Amino acid sequence: MEHVVPERLGQPPSSTGPGQEIYALAERLFPICRSITGDGVRGTLDILSEQIDLARHEVPTGTRLFDWTVPQEWNIRSASIIGPDGRKIVDFAQSNLHVVNYSIGFKGVLTLDELRPHIHTLPEQPQLIPYRTSYYAPTWGFCMAHDRLADMPDGLYQVEIDAEHRDGSLTYGEYLHRGETEREFLLSAHICHPSLANDNCSGLALLATLARILKTRKTRYSYRFLFAPGTIGALAWLSRNEDRLHLIDHGLVLSCVGDAGPPAYKRSRRGDAAIDRAMAHVLRREAGARLIDFSPYGYDERQYCSPGFNLPVGMFQRSVHGTFPQYHTSADNLDFIRPEHLEDSLRILMHVIDIVENDWTPLNLFPKGEPQLGRRGLYAALGGQKSSGISSMSLLWVLNLADGQHSLLAMAERSGLPFGELAAAARLLSDHGLLAEAAFEHRSR
Amino acid sequence: MEHVVPERLGQPPSSTGPGQEIYALAERLFPICRSITGDGVRGTLDILSEQIDLARHEVPTGTRLFDWTVPQEWNIRSASIIGPDGRKIVDFAQSNLHVVNYSIGFKGVLTLDELRPHIHTLPEQPQLIPYRTSYYAPTWGFCMAHDRLADMPDGLYQVEIDAEHRDGSLTYGEYLHRGETEREFLLSAHICHPSLANDNCSGLALLATLARILKTRKTRYSYRFLFAPGTIGALAWLSRNEDRLHLIDHGLVLSCVGDAGPPAYKRSRRGDAAIDRAMAHVLRREAGARLIDFSPYGYDERQYCSPGFNLPVGMFQRSVHGTFPQYHTSADNLDFIRPEHLEDSLRILMHVIDIVENDWTPLNLFPKGEPQLGRRGLYAALGGQKSSGISSMSLLWVLNLADGQHSLLAMAERSGLPFGELAAAARLLSDHGLLAEAAFEHRSR
Amino acid sequence: MEHVVPERLGQPPSSTGPGQEIYALAERLFPICRSITGDGVRGTLDILSEQIDLARHEVPTGTRLFDWTVPQEWNIRSASIIGPDGRKIVDFAQSNLHVVNYSIGFKGVLTLDELRPHIHTLPEQPQLIPYRTSYYAPTWGFCMAHDRLADMPDGLYQVEIDAEHRDGSLTYGEYLHRGETEREFLLSAHICHPSLANDNCSGLALLATLARILKTRKTRYSYRFLFAPGTIGALAWLSRNEDRLHLIDHGLVLSCVGDAGPPAYKRSRRGDAAIDRAMAHVLRREAGARLIDFSPYGYDERQYCSPGFNLPVGMFQRSVHGTFPQYHTSADNLDFIRPEHLEDSLRILMHVIDIVENDWTPLNLFPKGEPQLGRRGLYAALGGQKSSGISSMSLLWVLNLADGQHSLLAMAERSGLPFGELAAAARLLSDHGLLAEAAFEHRSR
Repeated sequence: MEHVVPERLGQPPSSTGPGQEIYALAERLFPICRSITGDGVRGTLDILSEQIDLARHEVPTGTRLFDWTVPQEWNIRSASIIGPDGRKIVDFAQSNLHVVNYSIGFKGVLTLDELRPHIHTLPEQPQLIPYRTSYYAPTWGFCMAHDRLADMPDGLYQVEIDAEHRDGSLTYGEYLHRGETEREFLLSAHICHPSLANDNCSGLALLATLARILKTRKTRYSYRFLFAPGTIGALAWLSRNEDRLHLIDHGLVLSCVGDAGPPAYKRSRRGDAAIDRAMAHVLRREAGARLIDFSPYGYDERQYCSPGFNLPVGMFQRSVHGTFPQYHTSADNLDFIRPEHLEDSLRILMHVIDIVENDWTPLNLFPKGEPQLGRRGLYAALGGQKSSGISSMSLLWVLNLADGQHSLLAMAERSGLPFGELAAAARLLSDHGLLAEAAFEHRSR
Repeated sequence: MEHVVPERLGQPPSSTGPGQEIYALAERLFPICRSITGDGVRGTLDILSEQIDLARHEVPTGTRLFDWTVPQEWNIRSASIIGPDGRKIVDFAQSNLHVVNYSIGFKGVLTLDELRPHIHTLPEQPQLIPYRTSYYAPTWGFCMAHDRLADMPDGLYQVEIDAEHRDGSLTYGEYLHRGETEREFLLSAHICHPSLANDNCSGLALLATLARILKTRKTRYSYRFLFAPGTIGALAWLSRNEDRLHLIDHGLVLSCVGDAGPPAYKRSRRGDAAIDRAMAHVLRREAGARLIDFSPYGYDERQYCSPGFNLPVGMFQRSVHGTFPQYHTSADNLDFIRPEHLEDSLRILMHVIDIVENDWTPLNLFPKGEPQLGRRGLYAALGGQKSSGISSMSLLWVLNLADGQHSLLAMAERSGLPFGELAAAARLLSDHGLLAEAAFEHRSR
Repeated sequence: MEHVVPERLGQPPSSTGPGQEIYALAERLFPICRSITGDGVRGTLDILSEQIDLARHEVPTGTRLFDWTVPQEWNIRSASIIGPDGRKIVDFAQSNLHVVNYSIGFKGVLTLDELRPHIHTLPEQPQLIPYRTSYYAPTWGFCMAHDRLADMPDGLYQVEIDAEHRDGSLTYGEYLHRGETEREFLLSAHICHPSLANDNCSGLALLATLARILKTRKTRYSYRFLFAPGTIGALAWLSRNEDRLHLIDHGLVLSCVGDAGPPAYKRSRRGDAAIDRAMAHVLRREAGARLIDFSPYGYDERQYCSPGFNLPVGMFQRSVHGTFPQYHTSADNLDFIRPEHLEDSLRILMHVIDIVENDWTPLNLFPKGEPQLGRRGLYAALGGQKSSGISSMSLLWVLNLADGQHSLLAMAERSGLPFGELAAAARLLSDHGLLAEAAFEHRSR
């Protein structure tokens, strides 16, 4: 068994390390106007492809995806509102949040009263532009700061949205890092949000960087990375891979992984899957971290954990979506995410990967009494010292629980010791011929 | 499936509603001298029969009821103590608590010292008359205020209890509201206490009113109302219905439901029966409500939950019997119970009935991913709004857990959402062809 | 079934009772220089043999014990360090802690710098002599107060340890109190520590006294007392009794049972063995008592609970070993243990023995409804009294749970009532023909 021990594990995030790389990548993704279909997704995948050899999938308009159908493809060129005085009040070129995502095209001259129903603002956050979509109801609209709307005088407004819906396809990207077995760890991030930095340029950039890191490693599991539009993209992937879903042992959806909030994990619908237990083990050592029970609202864990699939997929984030004031507004910008937080999220992901990679179920070959560790140089030679038990605790726990019924993760849960310490102890005991592998197991139990 | 949605659910108790009706009924029951047998029970059933078409059962003296035997019937006409000065000190006509319930007849002239062992008082509540019984040991006695006993001078007292024990029968009343199925909800109140308002004129009046309300409704369950003397009456009913007990899916014993205390529920011996879970769901939303584990002391849940039956029967009350100072004294009078508390108890009962009536186990017919709610008008058309998830949560929870393993009640427990909201969501989804019924089930799981 | 009700149960420890006897015995054991082999163990067994008819076992040097081998026997006659001024600075005759236990013999003249690596002190407790061992690495050494080492001038020191390792045997003592069945309760204390009063003269003296008390009693279980050197002695016993281990239903390791700390129990590896539940029941009523989950560090529960045996053996102590400042130092002396604490520990042991002796699973012969207790004189004749339920609660609980699935211990756990009260109730009900024994069971369930 090859071990993937993250090199930076336990070190404080650096100011010139992978955090900076992830941030730089997110920075490049930020300006693109993504949606659930269209060239924004393709442009995003182009940039991600510089990191890893992405497979790109195009699913034609009209394709049935379970209860859903791939909609027409949407592309937008420009959009603006010109005021009575001829000045451009709203310009898509300044922020792609200004147009309701998936808005139909429109051109006309309207009074303010006619225009107002098509304008969305946030009265309680009057300086921010909201993010709005209308994927499945054909309508047009603009989003803008409430303060600016309040300043708009009566008069005639020239309104234009140069956007089109036409038959085309839905696009998603996929990358598979092959491990020793075909058992899979699914990592998925939505690629459909326009200029929102945390939600989800952060997740896309982090996953691509993680994929690039894993590419050079030999792993036990295969790692599948999915960059797909929310809901419809996940459903597209699920519908095309139904016969392979049984291979998924672990999964994580990633979103909002770049802000200053403490890490948070939402459990899979199963609640006690190995990924749930491994994430709990990791986060219990992180200050302020939160473990949240599954609920059927959020990101694509909604699809992966629907009752017909019920995959062992949880969701990792920092500030919980929908609860921070920047969420789905123009304040979710590149200032809201920081390299050190992105790097911290990477560290946590590497830690959980380290656990599932290195988890196994040892069998004590000398189960009657303790084997004599001292004779093998595994025990403080001079007994009676008050501290002698402490450094040996991981050896003793592994030996005691190595009855073939406890994985190392289960031992960590029972003993309260860090997984890494127990894994190291198990390796040492194994090297001394004291342990065997109970059985080859794909799944952490 | 017909829905029994209590009309007043969620409304504050009114001053002219069912609470007043229940109180008025309790008021009429209060003066009657009931006991475990005799004409007091029959007179009580006469009044209750004005509400519902009660079946009346007479079980002859000497009938074996498991380990018990129906005792002789007891009736009392009058009782008094006349003091040395010829004045009536104690008069049964003033309060039937004055005579030890089931007292044998007696007539004689006694000194105070001879009389005193036959007088029961409450030295710590010196102005109250205690309630005492002696069903199975033949003795005679009086109960009175301790202060009055202290004032009694030495001298000769004329004592008379005009009561008799003779072969007769034990009487109980029963009413069955037939539902669509023969699966039953048993509702039971003891009818053996004399002038004690909360314990249990309140329970008798509440049950009769509930029966009258249900009479006009179409229900899934059949509802069996039992008005029987404590212990011996419940045993009589059990012994005559042993072959029908398997039909009981839910049950509640009612007592002390009219005082100002917060609602309290004592779980069945099983502890996790559907009635236990449904009552827990209801009471978790009631301020100050208490959930109490089963114990083999209390009312007739002792018999229903004896190991040979172990029925899913819990006990509903307000102030917990035996813990409030008015308990089993003359202070448990018509001032101690109030219409608003009776109405509140009715509301809680209707709520739990609503749950067991409307609980079912749906099966998501589109279990792979979420079905497209927007296309069916079930989802906020304009996505991205911060609040969009909240109003849709009940739909999403029902769809997610509709794997045929979760009843709506189980969904309420897991989601933390009110049962009623989930039931409404399930109806809506069902109406849109998204849900089927997993299996016809009598029992809430 | 014979009942072993400890006579002193519930009484405050006396100043002239068994506590004094245990203390006096510990006092005699204290001066002896014990180790894992040698005449110190034999001398200790000589004294214990005055209490009970101990079987003494000698296991020859070189005998294989699972992964271990019996070492050469160690005996020491004297040891000293004489300073440059000719004065004896360290003398084994003053405290046997002064020599590293199992030290090899040595004689020589050394400079202070040469001597210092062989001297062990406690800089943070500079007036105490530490306890050190070196069983399996051949070395020599002294232990002394740090303050005295600091005062030692440069110069030449005459050092002598008159000790020898030679082929011999390991010694342990065993006593079996035969009960009605051959199912066993194992009680084990380590006999290898030299002059440390709490750890473990206290355990040895307590066990011997307990054995002497049980000798006169008729018991259901057989009680096996083991006085064996830590680790190697327990392994010797296990290796010689492998075919009998299945008979052990309960077990306790005892150590540090004489200090002023509150009682503490460390659960067996199983965590829910009958001994774990019985000890929890006892200790939940003891002020300050602690229940500690199993961990594979401590005393011989490490061997009994190794995965190849996994015996239902927990550990009883007062102050938790390794956590009190006197632990493994010269401050663990006869002042540190007190008769009243030893007696309190005895009381707790007797209580837990009382539970396992008297636990059984009754079957209610009148399971339908409550049997009529009043008719049998088992119930307050005059009903309605507020207090009537309290004194009858144990009868009602036993009857209610006597479905053949609940032992008395399980009833105590569910009802919250003391085991003894339920056991008395069950006897009374049994005497009245209301209960039968569900099945003959060796193990408390």
